Amino acid sequence: MTDAPAEFDLIARYFRPLAGPAGLDLLDDAALLTPPPGRELVLTADAMVEGVHYLPDDPADLVARKLLRVNLSDLAAKAATPLGYLLTVSAPHGTAPAWFKLFATGLARDQECFGISLLGGDTTSTPGPFSLTLTAIGHVAPGGMVRRAGARAGDDLWVSGTIGDGALGLRAIRGEIPDPGGHLARRYRLPEPRLGLADPALMHAAMDVSDGLVQDLGHLCRAAGLGATLQTDRVPRSMADPATLDLCLTGGDDYELLFAADPADASALMGRAAALAIPITRIGAFHPGPLRVVDRSGDDLPLTGRGWSHF
Amino acid sequence: MTDAPAEFDLIARYFRPLAGPAGLDLLDDAALLTPPPGRELVLTADAMVEGVHYLPDDPADLVARKLLRVNLSDLAAKAATPLGYLLTVSAPHGTAPAWFKLFATGLARDQECFGISLLGGDTTSTPGPFSLTLTAIGHVAPGGMVRRAGARAGDDLWVSGTIGDGALGLRAIRGEIPDPGGHLARRYRLPEPRLGLADPALMHAAMDVSDGLVQDLGHLCRAAGLGATLQTDRVPRSMADPATLDLCLTGGDDYELLFAADPADASALMGRAAALAIPITRIGAFHPGPLRVVDRSGDDLPLTGRGWSHF
Repeated sequence: MTDAPAEFDLIARYFRPLAGPAGLDLLDDAALLTPPPGRELVLTADAMVEGVHYLPDDPADLVARKLLRVNLSDLAAKAATPLGYLLTVSAPHGTAPAWFKLFATGLARDQECFGISLLGGDTTSTPGPFSLTLTAIGHVAPGGMVRRAGARAGDDLWVSGTIGDGALGLRAIRGEIPDPGGHLARRYRLPEPRLGLADPALMHAAMDVSDGLVQDLGHLCRAAGLGATLQTDRVPRSMADPATLDLCLTGGDDYELLFAADPADASALMGRAAALAIPITRIGAFHPGPLRVVDRSGDDLPLTGRGWSHF
Repeated sequence: MTDAPAEFDLIARYFRPLAGPAGLDLLDDAALLTPPPGRELVLTADAMVEGVHYLPDDPADLVARKLLRVNLSDLAAKAATPLGYLLTVSAPHGTAPAWFKLFATGLARDQECFGISLLGGDTTSTPGPFSLTLTAIGHVAPGGMVRRAGARAGDDLWVSGTIGDGALGLRAIRGEIPDPGGHLARRYRLPEPRLGLADPALMHAAMDVSDGLVQDLGHLCRAAGLGATLQTDRVPRSMADPATLDLCLTGGDDYELLFAADPADASALMGRAAALAIPITRIGAFHPGPLRVVDRSGDDLPLTGRGWSHF
């Protein structure tokens, strides 16, 4: 028999231990998954590029966990239960095995946190920076996915957690703002997918905030054919500094849930969130007409940021 | 409402038309797929990096089709029926919309060929070369996946099509070898997934040849705990030139099926292949002991290539 070359060594050593039963020990060309009977599958894929989605100095275990978590955040927004994932890693030539080891350590830790396993994927070289992608698969009861479309006029607009920590965290890591205790940096590097919060019985529409609150609220509005009023003084933030308001509203990388719900369901929602120890805050309402971003007095707030776009 | 920035414009214009019902017009955070009842899912993911897996000058439509086809080749080897795919595109800043348009044209063409549609994905920028990944999903009857493990001592070793065209095609495109008519270049740029050929009733094990015939046969052998004898004079090649034998056996990028079958099933296999107009050739046999690569006289053939490894 021929010897396995280095690529297969890496896979065997670091990725094989992450494979669940459907991953067939990564010894086949594909995964074999028996879908949970009577369930619908929810599928999402996100890419992360070194220097674009994370910093070259970010530890590989945190990079791996962020890659997994940004995808789990999409599943969370859809009320899906995570099942497993496929992973592709394109790594620069000469990447040390220690990088792969630390990367896999991060995945192992979060697999345990979230009860999922690796199904398969691909490892290649690249002359460019690290390029990582993950496809996550979850499941819902038939009709149980919370859609992006569906907000109704009169619905409350809610958000989980705090908004702006990701954008502030990036600046903190760059030394541009203070971050005693490192809370903001942690929020940038390790988002918290809000699994379990979304509920089709209590939400008319939901999505996760990845490209900036205002931009993502625009998506919810367009999907509903509605406008909304965002009361910026109600947006929960870790730093109350008015100078960072614009950044927090448009910076992105929050991975909090943004959702629309009937005002009559407010107390049920708060009960559900409290049981999960996830703070949620009402930050506005949906209505016909344009999307308005207003200050405490109800006046339109001019924003300089537009939200994240790659092109 | 906020305007959609350029990234969403690109997605709306070029990728949305490719989405099937489960892709929800790419207007949600995730796809929603009802798995075919009573079927098992087969999942695979492959990455392609510009300058590593394809040439910077390769036309974007052919790059897209190759990306899809290398994944469909894995499904083909597992006897799975393709269902759909998720796609991530990390493109250099300043990539012209025309690139995306041509890329999507290629996907549209092959979607029609293979009866599949786009489920979702992600589009990002990168400071490096294009980095493309695709996750393909197919389905089989329960127990109907042909595994990589399972070859038995005494099984014939078969291969579909011709071996070495991918490696020769790359050299032809580089002007290193003649390629009148462009057959080899086409084989490099546009592999043919051998869908429909694999059959769990007629094959004990199968995989597709992507990293080189000898290396991939090593995988089949290791998975079975067996050796094999590869009769190199029987390996079907487009160019009979002895000087390219080594390259053909180790070069990779073939996307032909390599499989193990009971000699008693040879005529049934040939009938199945003939019905699909896919040539198949018996190129050796499995047995206990080492993997042997032999010439016409049965003598061991020294190989200089080892098969493709990224690291």
